[in-house]
This record gives sequence, structure tokens and C-alpha cells, in this order.
Amino acid sequence: MAKKKFALSVQRSENFADWYQDIVRAADLAEVSPTRGCMIIKPWGYGIWELIQADLDRRFKETGHQNCYFPLFIPQDFIQKEADHVEGFAKEMAVVTHHRLKSVDGQLQPDPEAKLEQPLVVRPTSETIIGHAFSQWIQSHRDLPLLINQWANVVRWEMRPRLFLRTVEFLWQEGHTAHADQQDAVEETMRMLGVYRDVAQDVLAMKVIDGEKTENERFPGAVSTYSIEAMMQDGKALQAGTSHYLGTNFAQAQGIQYNSKDGGLEFCHTTSWGVSTRLIGGVIMSHGDDDGLRLPPRIAPQQIVILPMMRNGETAPEVSEFCDRLKGELDGKEVYGSRLRTFIDRKDASGADKRWDWVRKGAPLIVEVGPRDVADGKVTFLRRDALRTDDGKLAWQSCGGDEFGTMASGLLTEIQEGIFARSEQRTQNNIESGITSYADVEAYFAAKDGKENVPGWTLVPWCKPTGAELIAVEDQLKKSQLSLRVTPFEQPASLGQCAFTGKDAVEAVLVGRAY
Amino acid sequence: MAKKKFALSVQRSENFADWYQDIVRAADLAEVSPTRGCMIIKPWGYGIWELIQADLDRRFKETGHQNCYFPLFIPQDFIQKEADHVEGFAKEMAVVTHHRLKSVDGQLQPDPEAKLEQPLVVRPTSETIIGHAFSQWIQSHRDLPLLINQWANVVRWEMRPRLFLRTVEFLWQEGHTAHADQQDAVEETMRMLGVYRDVAQDVLAMKVIDGEKTENERFPGAVSTYSIEAMMQDGKALQAGTSHYLGTNFAQAQGIQYNSKDGGLEFCHTTSWGVSTRLIGGVIMSHGDDDGLRLPPRIAPQQIVILPMMRNGETAPEVSEFCDRLKGELDGKEVYGSRLRTFIDRKDASGADKRWDWVRKGAPLIVEVGPRDVADGKVTFLRRDALRTDDGKLAWQSCGGDEFGTMASGLLTEIQEGIFARSEQRTQNNIESGITSYADVEAYFAAKDGKENVPGWTLVPWCKPTGAELIAVEDQLKKSQLSLRVTPFEQPASLGQCAFTGKDAVEAVLVGRAY
Repeated sequence: MAKKKFALSVQRSENFADWYQDIVRAADLAEVSPTRGCMIIKPWGYGIWELIQADLDRRFKETGHQNCYFPLFIPQDFIQKEADHVEGFAKEMAVVTHHRLKSVDGQLQPDPEAKLEQPLVVRPTSETIIGHAFSQWIQSHRDLPLLINQWANVVRWEMRPRLFLRTVEFLWQEGHTAHADQQDAVEETMRMLGVYRDVAQDVLAMKVIDGEKTENERFPGAVSTYSIEAMMQDGKALQAGTSHYLGTNFAQAQGIQYNSKDGGLEFCHTTSWGVSTRLIGGVIMSHGDDDGLRLPPRIAPQQIVILPMMRNGETAPEVSEFCDRLKGELDGKEVYGSRLRTFIDRKDASGADKRWDWVRKGAPLIVEVGPRDVADGKVTFLRRDALRTDDGKLAWQSCGGDEFGTMASGLLTEIQEGIFARSEQRTQNNIESGITSYADVEAYFAAKDGKENVPGWTLVPWCKPTGAELIAVEDQLKKSQLSLRVTPFEQPASLGQCAFTGKDAVEAVLVGRAY
Repeated sequence: MAKKKFALSVQRSENFADWYQDIVRAADLAEVSPTRGCMIIKPWGYGIWELIQADLDRRFKETGHQNCYFPLFIPQDFIQKEADHVEGFAKEMAVVTHHRLKSVDGQLQPDPEAKLEQPLVVRPTSETIIGHAFSQWIQSHRDLPLLINQWANVVRWEMRPRLFLRTVEFLWQEGHTAHADQQDAVEETMRMLGVYRDVAQDVLAMKVIDGEKTENERFPGAVSTYSIEAMMQDGKALQAGTSHYLGTNFAQAQGIQYNSKDGGLEFCHTTSWGVSTRLIGGVIMSHGDDDGLRLPPRIAPQQIVILPMMRNGETAPEVSEFCDRLKGELDGKEVYGSRLRTFIDRKDASGADKRWDWVRKGAPLIVEVGPRDVADGKVTFLRRDALRTDDGKLAWQSCGGDEFGTMASGLLTEIQEGIFARSEQRTQNNIESGITSYADVEAYFAAKDGKENVPGWTLVPWCKPTGAELIAVEDQLKKSQLSLRVTPFEQPASLGQCAFTGKDAVEAVLVGRAY
């Protein structure tokens, strides 16, 4: 049998990393910029981000949060304070040292006379500057809880950037909240992790495992860090969102205090939580296939694309009118509480070029309209989630023009749910829970390495070691490029012995490879 | 008569600049940050920005634009190229020179080993980096027009920052478009200026004068620059939005070319246009009074605030229920195509404190609910745009509970229109058009200086001088702190002589003081 021909030049099974690069380019999501390590997010990619943003923002507001905006630059002495109190403090950050360029013999250079007295750091995160504001804003228990979110760009100097997954600059939101007591702060930490889990699963159609990060994977300074982890099609884990309970650690370092009801001066309990444009990388690696992206309808900038057939750059008037009528009807329909997003692509290009463009971009429904469809009053379409028949041909479907309008919303719901079901199935099928010893872990990955695309994860019973014992475990895993991902909230019924130490296990931890 | 007591500590007539500072603080819009020259935009201020953004964004999309995101950092050699081709190029910008901090004796400093080979500039605007992308993206006439917008933060090193009006970092949008010919590009330039005018007037309720900037006020490198100028209550002009037709100047410098239909290689005609968080400064100085901000309902984060009366920190159950019922009813209503934004403020604070908080913040309608209102089935409210009676007392109004729900949308429309009418009236009343000589200009401002809050502008016939003659005019104006604002599209029927040179006038130009 001849090799099937796909729309991407690299297949997932050949080289997943190259496939990823190819799909980002072919779906026109983003590109490498002339600024080292930074990306240009193109309209289709940014449109996805806008939909993710809008959904998250609505949920943040429904849970009582308000948006603010804090400065891009953080004075070095703020960073100094953080470095003094936080172990494992990262020092890779963009440093602004001058505020003017000067032309010397026609060549620009930082003007020595415009050197800043104190360098400024481009925010890698805003804990310090927001914490300082909180210390000013909070006086009394009446000011609590204080629930703030910020949408912003942040910068972390990455040496090996990859579009959406790890770039020098990325877009994110960071929630920062202050509470009167531990219970309220822990509830907030869990509530926001729950928001992330719901958005990942219900909106991005990406199955995630939620749980607590292990000790050495905590955010520096946090009491506990929780995350959602998603399994990509190559079996690696993507940490897709984190929520931190910071105890009173940051409040003590930054003087975030309040007068309690009974007159005492207390430190606030604080939290922080964030997701970023990395989520788009997760969507790509969860749902893409060898023909391109497959977008869950809830985050598809266009859900239904209508392609009028053209001859010599012209569209027959009856075809054009048919398309307008169809779009008009679809514009009146809703799915997931929003009007359908429908687009007629009238670009002067060949029908095949346009069709495959939209296949690669992952539009959920692609409708082609030609004179024969108009004459027959029929709509011919492709479902992006079921693009091909078993023999590799395009799986065209058709129905009456009126019928399509009636069933469009239902089709989109079906696609959304179908995409999630695949992600859920794949995740469940590739978590090995029958592990009793570290030899089992090694055997599991050894058996899969080089043979399957989805080595997946192992759920490993352990005694939750700390200190040197924990580092020994991590070092052992590192030899097989493995790491501790998360201790899932959903735990197995029985545990047995710790796979690393032979002691009694107290919980099970997910082990796998990660982005 | 005793001096009236107002909610702000400074009155406009006493010191407009201090009043501005006071209202920004008292309305809880923004504050100075520990990072020199940068601001923290607080929830009420950011909420206003979100509404302005949403309205603009909808209009950008309706006119065919797509959002993208380009890097924060621009390599110095891009800036070099711009400096080489643009006269009047500004060099005040934040320069990133290192990518790591290093701890030396416990003190952080830029790590000499992490010095960048080439400095990076924090974008003051994105012409160069977007132009470079355009040169890659555009091949054929089929790729045109290319209509891109970006929402972003930008940085310009300001020595005398003022919140919202002039800060080191600010938020804005920048539109960048490329077209096949001059006509299409000029139409785009005008269309987007029109969008700005409509948003300023219809949404921000701020009367603006649209027109062309004079030669030396053009964006460096532009063929023509257009702006909307708004008159603040102190008579100064605020340039509130600009739209530039760039000809092929930037396309030539950046190689933005396309293959035309007849096979030739042509330079694109490009445009750019932007508005920023400065608009919020305009709203404050247009509509604020001595009791605080007055927000046009279309950009009020909360349009109707309901204050349940409390006794000893408790609200009577029937009062609380009445408030919930009222909010429930209002939530079902719309104004300007959006659901009413209604908020019940249950904060544990005195009724007077809460009332005056919302007066200062400028909520359009403030409803107070006490046990007597509930017993009478009445709603007692304040209109922020008509807060006081002639003798300075609060102008309480009341109506039946059902009636309020029915009339709320209408009241908000009335407030929106009323606020615009005042701004329009004030602008029209304070443009002196009977100018025939420069002596008239001086006399006009001399007569007003120190006496009135609104010296306003003069509409001056001139011969549209260029070169040295234009500089002489500007220098003369500068002596009276005046400047050329804009040549309005709406010109007087007759012109007479140039007020500066005595030659025949060819048009009339607005002259005034400016922010």
C-alpha cells in the first residue's frame, strides 16, 4: 500500500518535535521573530488566545476577581529583597540599564550619561511589585479578601526557546490574592486550580490531571504548589497551569498585614496562580494530526468556514448569494452561549489551496459551495475531527441547505466533545498504575522507548521522601529523563510499598517525561 | 454665603493640576508606582480601560482588522535603520543590556558575563518590527490590504510623568496596515481617524475636533498625520488619537513590496494609528467636577450602584432582599446593546462613606435603600451628572421600585447624552474664530489668563507656511505657551489674511495650549 499523503511535511510518528514546528508554521499560528527567543503571534494564533482569555476572564470575574495593571519594570532593590528571602531564586532576567541611545559616528549605543542609578528588571512575574501594593492597600480585615488579576507580558531569559512552549517573552495572567486566614487562602488556591482544570477540559478539550507538586517542584517561597498536567500525543507531560498557596511567607517579607476584628495585627495569607500562551502549545500537541491543527470549536476563531468555488478568480453570483444566505442563517445560531463564528473565504486562490489552508488551521467545519450544490440546494462539508475515511480519502458529507443550519450547533458540540473524549481516552490508556518497584518504572519506559509515540506516565507509590532522600529519587529518575510530575488528587485505593525506598507508601506520584 | 463643601480637597478653579492628581487618587483610578514614572492602574481605572478596549476592538474587527502580537524588545540594529531614515528620531528609550543578575557579596548587579552582544530596546512603538514582518508576509497584490492591530504596552522615557497623560510605560493599541495604492491607504487613515472620533464622542462623551496636524507636528517619517483634539475643562488641548498616512516611506526603508496584477514590483503604501490609556486622562479632565469623576455610562464599570443601609454592620433582611430583587430586575435590562452593569455594595462601612466613594468614582446612578424605602416600595437615587441642587444640597430623586427598573436604561442614555452635550457646548463656546491678526490671538489669551478656567482655543487663518517661516510662527506662539493644534476638517467659509504673515490665508488652524 502506498504511503498516505498528509498536509504536513512531517508526521508525528517520524519526529514529534519537527512535526510541532511544522504545524505551528503551517497553521499560521506564530513565527520566530528577529528578536532572539521572542515570537510573533499571528492572527489565527492570537485569535485562539483571545478566546481563551475571554473565557478565563469571565470565570475570574464570576469568582470575584478584579483586573489591575502593574508596571513592566521592577526596581532592582525589589528583586534584591526577593533574592534575600527566596531560596532557589532565578537570576535569568532582562536588565534595563540605560534610558537613552546615543549616536556616535552614526552608530547608536547606550548613552553613558543616561545610565540608570538603579537597574530595572523586566518582570519575570509580579509577586514583588504587587506584594508591595498589597502592603499599602490592605489595612483592615474589611479590605480582605483582596482578589486581583493581571493580564500581562513577562520575560524570562530562555536559552532554548520553542514557540508557545518556552519563549523569552510570553503572555499570561497572574492572579494575586490576600486573605485573612489559611482556610480562605487554601480554598482560593483550590478554586482557581479548579477554574484551570475546567477551562482545560471543557474549553480546550484537553484532559488534565490535577494534584500537588512535589517539594522541590514548588514555586520558590510557596507552602504548596498545585498544577494541572496534560499528556501530549508523544506521551510527555505539559504543566498547563499552577496555583500556589504562599502561606504568610510573602506577606512577612513584604509587610502585608491587617488589623483583625479583635484588634490584633496579623499577616495575610496569600496565593498566586497563572496560565500562559503555553496553553496554545498544549492544544496543538493534544489535538493536532498529520494534516494540521484540530481546534476545539470553543476556541476556534472561525468555527465554520465557507469556501465559494471560483473560476478564473470569479465566483458565480448564485454561489456567492448561497454562501451569504448560509452565513446569514448560521449567524443567527448559538453554541456554548456565543453566536457561531462563521467566515466566507473569498480570497482569490484555488479551491484546493483554500481547503487545505483551513484543514491545516483546524477550522472545525469546512463547507465548499459550487454551482451544483446551489442547484441541488445542498451543503457539502468536511468535519475536521473526522477528515478522512479509512482509506485516506476526504470524508465529505452533505445535507440539505436548511438542514445544515439546524444541525450546525449540534455538530460543533459533537466535535468539541469528541476531541475531548480522544484526549481523555489517550491519557487514561497511557497511565500505568501497576507499578510496585522502580524496576517496573524502568521496564515500562524501556519497553516503549523508540517503539511507540505515547510512552505515557507511571503512577508510582512512594513514601513521600524529603531532603537528601528526595534528591536521590529525582537523580535516579533524571537518568531516564524522567521527573516527578504531580501527586494526583485522585489516588489509588491501595498503595503497598514505596517503589524507591521499599518503605510503606503514603501516596502515589505521577512519573513521566515533560516539556 | 459659606463656601460650598465638595468631595475633593482641591477645586478645579483653584489649581487644575492639583485637582487632577486629587481626582485620580480619590476616584481610585491609578497610583504612582515604586518604579519611577510608571503607574499602577487600579480596578476602577482598568475597568474603564477594558470597556474602551472592547468598544475599539469591536470596531477594528468590523472594519476588517486582525489582532497580532509582536515582541516587546526590538534589536538595536532595527532602531539604527529607523534612525538612519527618519529625521527627528527620538532616542529616549529603555535599553536592555544584560540578561542576568549576579549576586556579588549578597548584592545583585548585572552580570558582566551576561552582557548582550547587541542591546535590545523596549518598544516605544512597533513600526520597525511590524514593518519587517510585513516585508516577509506580503508577496502579491492578493495579500493586500494587510490590516493588523496590536494591543500592547510601550515605553517612552518621560522626565515629567503624570498619571494617564504621560507615563514611562503605557497601554495602547497600534494599528499597522499595508495597501496597494495611495487611495486605499489614505481611505484607511481617514476611516480609523473616524473610528477614533466616533469612540471619543459617542462612547467617551468627549467632543473632539478632527483635522490634520501641521508639518512639524507630523509623526517622523509620515506623509500626513491626522488627530482628534479634545478641549479639557482648563481649556487646554489633549491630542487624543492619531492616524498617519506614511506613503511609501516606511515601505521603502523596510522593503515592503508586492507583485502587482500586471507583474511589476511595487512598494506598499502604509498607515499606522493609535490611542492609549491617555484617553482616560481625557475623560477625567473633560467630565470630572469638584466632587470627583463623572463617568459616561458606556464606560462605567458599574452603571448603577445599590447601597443597602446598614446598622451596626448588619443589613436588615428585607432591605437586602429588596436590593437583590432590584438588581435582578436591572440585570435583565440593556443599554447600548449591553446588559446593565449593576453592583450591590455590601461593604461594612458607613452609608455616607460608601455614598461619597461612589460619587468620587463617578458611578452614573447611585441608589440608597433603607427600611423606609422598602416599606414604601420606593427607590431613592442620585444622578451623578446632576448631583446637587442650586444651593449645593444633594439632589435626591425617588420613584416606585418597578418604575426605576423601567426607566433605568433611559436614564443612562440621558446621562450619556447630557455629559456629551456639556463637553460639546464647552468646546464650541471656547473656540474664538473672529481672529484676524496675531495681536487678536495674544489679546484673546491675555484677556482670559488668570481669570477664567477655560481660555480655550483660537481658530487662526494662516498661509500654511513651511520651513523657516513655519518655525518663526511656532517660536512666536511658544512665547505665550501656545502651539498649533490641528487644521480642522471643518473650515470657516471665509478666511481673509494670514494672522502671522499678512499674506492671503489658505486655511484656518487651531491654536491653543496643550497637554
